[in-house]
Amino acid sequence: MTEPWQDPALPAGVRAADLLARMTAQEKIAQLYGVWPGSNSTPGGDMAPLQHAMSEDVDLTELLPHGLGQLTRPFGTAPVDPAKGAARLASLQERVRAANRFRLPALAHEECLTGFTAWQATVFPTPLAWGASFDPALVQEMASAIGSSMRSVGIHQGLAPVLDVVRDPRWGRTEESISEDPYLVATVGTAYVQGLEAAGIVATLKHFAGYSASRGARNHAPASIGPRELADVILPPFEMAVREGGARSVMAAYNDVDGLPAHAHHRLLTELLREQWEFTGTVVSDYFGVSFLESAHQLTDSPAGAASLALAAGVDVELPAVRCFGAGPLDEELVDRAVLRVLTQKCEVGLLDPDWAPPGPSSDLISSDPVDLDPPAMRALAGQLAQESVVLLANDGILPLAASAVRRIAVLGPHADDTAAMLGCYTFPRHVLLDHPEVPMGVAVPTLLEALGAELPDADFVADPAVADVCVVAVGDRSGLFGRGTSGEGCDAADLELPDGQGELVDEALASGTPVVLVVLSGRPYALGRWADRVAAVVQAFFPGEEGGPAVAGVLSGRVDPSGRLPVSVPRDPAGQPWTYLAPPLGQRGEASNLDPTPLFPFGHGMSYTTYDWQTPSVDDDSFPTDGETTLRLTVRNSGTRPGAEVVQLYLHDPVGKVARPVARLVGYARVPLEAGESAEVHFTFPADMAAYTGPDGDRIVEPGELELRLAASCAEGDVRYAVPVTLTGPERVVGRERRMRCEVRVK
Amino acid sequence: MTEPWQDPALPAGVRAADLLARMTAQEKIAQLYGVWPGSNSTPGGDMAPLQHAMSEDVDLTELLPHGLGQLTRPFGTAPVDPAKGAARLASLQERVRAANRFRLPALAHEECLTGFTAWQATVFPTPLAWGASFDPALVQEMASAIGSSMRSVGIHQGLAPVLDVVRDPRWGRTEESISEDPYLVATVGTAYVQGLEAAGIVATLKHFAGYSASRGARNHAPASIGPRELADVILPPFEMAVREGGARSVMAAYNDVDGLPAHAHHRLLTELLREQWEFTGTVVSDYFGVSFLESAHQLTDSPAGAASLALAAGVDVELPAVRCFGAGPLDEELVDRAVLRVLTQKCEVGLLDPDWAPPGPSSDLISSDPVDLDPPAMRALAGQLAQESVVLLANDGILPLAASAVRRIAVLGPHADDTAAMLGCYTFPRHVLLDHPEVPMGVAVPTLLEALGAELPDADFVADPAVADVCVVAVGDRSGLFGRGTSGEGCDAADLELPDGQGELVDEALASGTPVVLVVLSGRPYALGRWADRVAAVVQAFFPGEEGGPAVAGVLSGRVDPSGRLPVSVPRDPAGQPWTYLAPPLGQRGEASNLDPTPLFPFGHGMSYTTYDWQTPSVDDDSFPTDGETTLRLTVRNSGTRPGAEVVQLYLHDPVGKVARPVARLVGYARVPLEAGESAEVHFTFPADMAAYTGPDGDRIVEPGELELRLAASCAEGDVRYAVPVTLTGPERVVGRERRMRCEVRVK
Repeated sequence: MTEPWQDPALPAGVRAADLLARMTAQEKIAQLYGVWPGSNSTPGGDMAPLQHAMSEDVDLTELLPHGLGQLTRPFGTAPVDPAKGAARLASLQERVRAANRFRLPALAHEECLTGFTAWQATVFPTPLAWGASFDPALVQEMASAIGSSMRSVGIHQGLAPVLDVVRDPRWGRTEESISEDPYLVATVGTAYVQGLEAAGIVATLKHFAGYSASRGARNHAPASIGPRELADVILPPFEMAVREGGARSVMAAYNDVDGLPAHAHHRLLTELLREQWEFTGTVVSDYFGVSFLESAHQLTDSPAGAASLALAAGVDVELPAVRCFGAGPLDEELVDRAVLRVLTQKCEVGLLDPDWAPPGPSSDLISSDPVDLDPPAMRALAGQLAQESVVLLANDGILPLAASAVRRIAVLGPHADDTAAMLGCYTFPRHVLLDHPEVPMGVAVPTLLEALGAELPDADFVADPAVADVCVVAVGDRSGLFGRGTSGEGCDAADLELPDGQGELVDEALASGTPVVLVVLSGRPYALGRWADRVAAVVQAFFPGEEGGPAVAGVLSGRVDPSGRLPVSVPRDPAGQPWTYLAPPLGQRGEASNLDPTPLFPFGHGMSYTTYDWQTPSVDDDSFPTDGETTLRLTVRNSGTRPGAEVVQLYLHDPVGKVARPVARLVGYARVPLEAGESAEVHFTFPADMAAYTGPDGDRIVEPGELELRLAASCAEGDVRYAVPVTLTGPERVVGRERRMRCEVRVK
Repeated sequence: MTEPWQDPALPAGVRAADLLARMTAQEKIAQLYGVWPGSNSTPGGDMAPLQHAMSEDVDLTELLPHGLGQLTRPFGTAPVDPAKGAARLASLQERVRAANRFRLPALAHEECLTGFTAWQATVFPTPLAWGASFDPALVQEMASAIGSSMRSVGIHQGLAPVLDVVRDPRWGRTEESISEDPYLVATVGTAYVQGLEAAGIVATLKHFAGYSASRGARNHAPASIGPRELADVILPPFEMAVREGGARSVMAAYNDVDGLPAHAHHRLLTELLREQWEFTGTVVSDYFGVSFLESAHQLTDSPAGAASLALAAGVDVELPAVRCFGAGPLDEELVDRAVLRVLTQKCEVGLLDPDWAPPGPSSDLISSDPVDLDPPAMRALAGQLAQESVVLLANDGILPLAASAVRRIAVLGPHADDTAAMLGCYTFPRHVLLDHPEVPMGVAVPTLLEALGAELPDADFVADPAVADVCVVAVGDRSGLFGRGTSGEGCDAADLELPDGQGELVDEALASGTPVVLVVLSGRPYALGRWADRVAAVVQAFFPGEEGGPAVAGVLSGRVDPSGRLPVSVPRDPAGQPWTYLAPPLGQRGEASNLDPTPLFPFGHGMSYTTYDWQTPSVDDDSFPTDGETTLRLTVRNSGTRPGAEVVQLYLHDPVGKVARPVARLVGYARVPLEAGESAEVHFTFPADMAAYTGPDGDRIVEPGELELRLAASCAEGDVRYAVPVTLTGPERVVGRERRMRCEVRVK
């Protein structure tokens, strides 16, 4: 007989409630945690038996009869053939189902920031590169492809995207973040969410909230941040990804915000997220984040106490394993609240359906059906995004190399012929390189040198710098985890000096007298002021992924027109952090301090091999009410001789307000691909809501008065092409959930 | 006939209200600003005629008939003989009085942080040195002497002390601050206030609030800080100085706090300061701070608008001149509120009395009565404080020099024979050196080399390092203003590397093979990790003032036993800021980040030439209610052969709380001078109120539960001598204004 909870015709919430009502207390709790199948498998072979990670001594025979909420990273961190991984997951699910009386499978989650984090899966560029592309549509396409891959092998939830706004680029997880600008993070991050969710994968917004604002950029350090900065800088990407992106999961952050740990932050996880934003999905803990409430934040002296705090604040699921949620009695009403959310989500992804079965190969442990997680279409997508993300910062004319009389090319630097230079921290091959160097990485990742050779077959490489026509010096980061790299989670930097003494290498190359093209492949911006006046060109890429080598080489050769724009400021000097462009006038350069934080290359900056004319824009209404909108119309023409893509940026300068505000902030942008000689009209429809900011009383307000809409090629005042004055009329408005969060952009 | 406002028998408030009622609108406004007599006088001679500073075009003939609130820095910034300065001030006051119908003088204010900032006045050590002394009683004595000097020449208000808690030592004004610990700032700062106020001078607490938390330590940059951190770290010194110190003025800070500029911060200046703390004095602007609301914070587009915002928030007086408060119509009720406060204060300092006359010489411009602002007793006080502030950080036994077989001493480093090494930014001689190098500084300031020569008359100085018995290398800061130094207002540092390449000098000295004694004379802590294992000894002093040379030399020779303790952490590495010891467990050293912020020398650390025994302490009650107290009793014995002074420090470790809290924080201390062999009993009466912290809802709470009271020689866990467990019983309490803010300490 089919019970209501099994009936696909009923709404998910109704089915979940029905199932909840049938569960024992133990069965409910079991839905709120996961187990980690473990990662000590034989490389290339099967995974180890189901086991509990991190030395927890849990008897699965005793645990599983109550059911299981989540399977944590069932594909593991060691190389496993994808087909075998899928079969193994199916087998795990069968074991989970067989043990509980409802035959409920677990929700399986995996990391997927720059692609499904599994062996032989496509490695896309890192989030900083997404930001540099200013191309949310392409990011959405990528996420959709990632999601489809994951779905095809039985994964339901992806632990991405990272929506932390970069506040201090010394932080190791800067590479996992999209930008220092909340609007760019919001729009690109929401596109990612839409892509992943469209593929049927539960997207997980992380880390909620404030993680990137840690003091001294030290991972896990407290976030000294007030409610206004939180509201105007940190939270908008999450709000957009919930409201517009439809994200179904949010991960709490490890850090405390002004003393209150996110995992115990009721105002954040419940009042803001659910009551104001009307989020209905699940809030999951960061790995071990619940137990941190006991062991690190010291808000309680027991695992059960940590569980109580987290559950009451609004955490629904403890990841990756059971440490706290199973440790003691919990408030039944709160447990029911969380379980209902979990079961609703399980229902949505089909796990309550009577005919549920894992996808793909059957539960045979050894499958013969091949699973291709890196098909040509995905490689092409990875390549396109990589190409769009390469930023040409400076060029005295030496680039593109194919156009100049360059024959002898000296390629120097530790990153010139190193696959790792293309890979961020949350990529599977990076972990293979670190932990299983004897095993193939799983995907082909050409190095810059290899790709340059393909681009310029007639050129002579390994030429001596002194006699070469040009020196390409590739410097940057080795990404890793917890100190095993120069960038990545737990790989924070004390300052923004190029790591590993690579600066000396640049000095040496310059000493040869040969023109130097500096290529930076990094997970954060580094200070380049020391060489800015001496190098012939500078190219910046941010871990561009498996097709990153060809993308960067393509820009160098000229096959690819560089169209990336900086998602983070590139500073002149290594010290003096933190600074981002979102700074009010006081405390910027001037008499008050001998420190001048003005960056070497500003946010939004990027050059091209072609040229663009920006014609005088028009504005539909230069005066409109505080609940109205106006449209700016700008014609951009590719006035050069080669195809390219201009990125038109719209900044808001608000001359008078009730609190200190940044001199300018991004409120719109359009990536405009143009053939040589081609024109396009770009329309920005700017709603007054976009001028909203958090006022002295904590309300988000839109004030009447003068504004300046700046059509610009970067955030720097010198790059403002047109400043369009407009006036907001009528009464001051307080805007809430209904506010419009973006400029509508049309390119014709 | 005597009007009520002139009647000394009536209360100040009554007299002020009576006078207020008689004033025209213009007369009222005139009480709310100052004029700056200007500083372009002939060195050593008279001051220039009364003039308006900073190129404001104000017609004094038109202005003065309405009266005048303040005279800004009437002694000027150029060298003026004190007697002539006093006479000139008297003459200015006569001009002010003669012009207005009430014959009201102005309130005259001066800077006085490290002494009356006038020519020939005693230069005391900087606030960091006060913190290092852990001797509030001596600081109070100093402030009393400073106040008496100022009062004797006609000054009424002193723009000190600075109560900013160091949050990022790269900030240039770190030297003006007392410590990174709020309790040390509060107790030492309050002692200063008590001394100044006891001498009849209005003390001015600055900068209210958050100035030291500026982003990137850039002067004037925004303070990213939340309400809890503000309440628990930044505000306590101000609260104690208002409640216990009786400070009668507070200066608003330049910065914004989470977006809201302090000068427009009603919650801070009115709700907190006046309504909660019951402050009744005046709130003055920082110089030009009101106009910053227009020009920099951009909260308004006019000077009159800036005045309205500031007045409404709670600023009473615009300093140093009239830019905004005289610029347009202001709300009459708010004007009356401010004028009443100003007139009450003027009444308190005698300016409403019919027989008021300026002190000292009569109004003759050229006086023949000498005024001694640097009498022997004040020099002695400056010397004693300097001695108590020198911190011996490391010593392999080479110090004291007089006790070893040292004859040939190489003294190196730019600070070895430089007077400026003793002088902070807010000292008069430093400005003379910078702006009038042709003029005598006004007070004798022996250099370290001169003082060492006096200490060790038989030693051979200018010895070559390679053949010397010891190398004394003196490094550190040149203090200055706005970029004209390495420390001081507007002289912020990008990192904590020794400035001016002095690190290489230390390397060179070490290369000689001769033992190196490193002497750091600085306005902030610098990273010393590069040399820590190689130098024979390290001595740290913080601009110790006119008697600083003899004090440091006395410590080197052994005449003075070092008894200073670090008021700020000394880091190992130059980058990675900010960090202070008030950090919770998460984000400290560990697996989460490759950065380890553990300092080289912790807060509270300092060595001696003698030794101390700390005997097992007793506790009166190891369990007491959340509104109770207990007393710890500890006997300390000087077990060495020379006199010294131990600094017993009491830290609170609170193992479980409702928010993340620092691992330990200072809650009491006692400086205990002991002759060789002498013992003393130290009693700390610890009220449960001292365990209060700001909870998740913003209340300051005392929770029941376990606490650990740590009797320690520094904040580092390794320096805890005894950890005394106590238990708070009874209900959780919310504490307010009545809370006890300090441990009572008795030494017998």
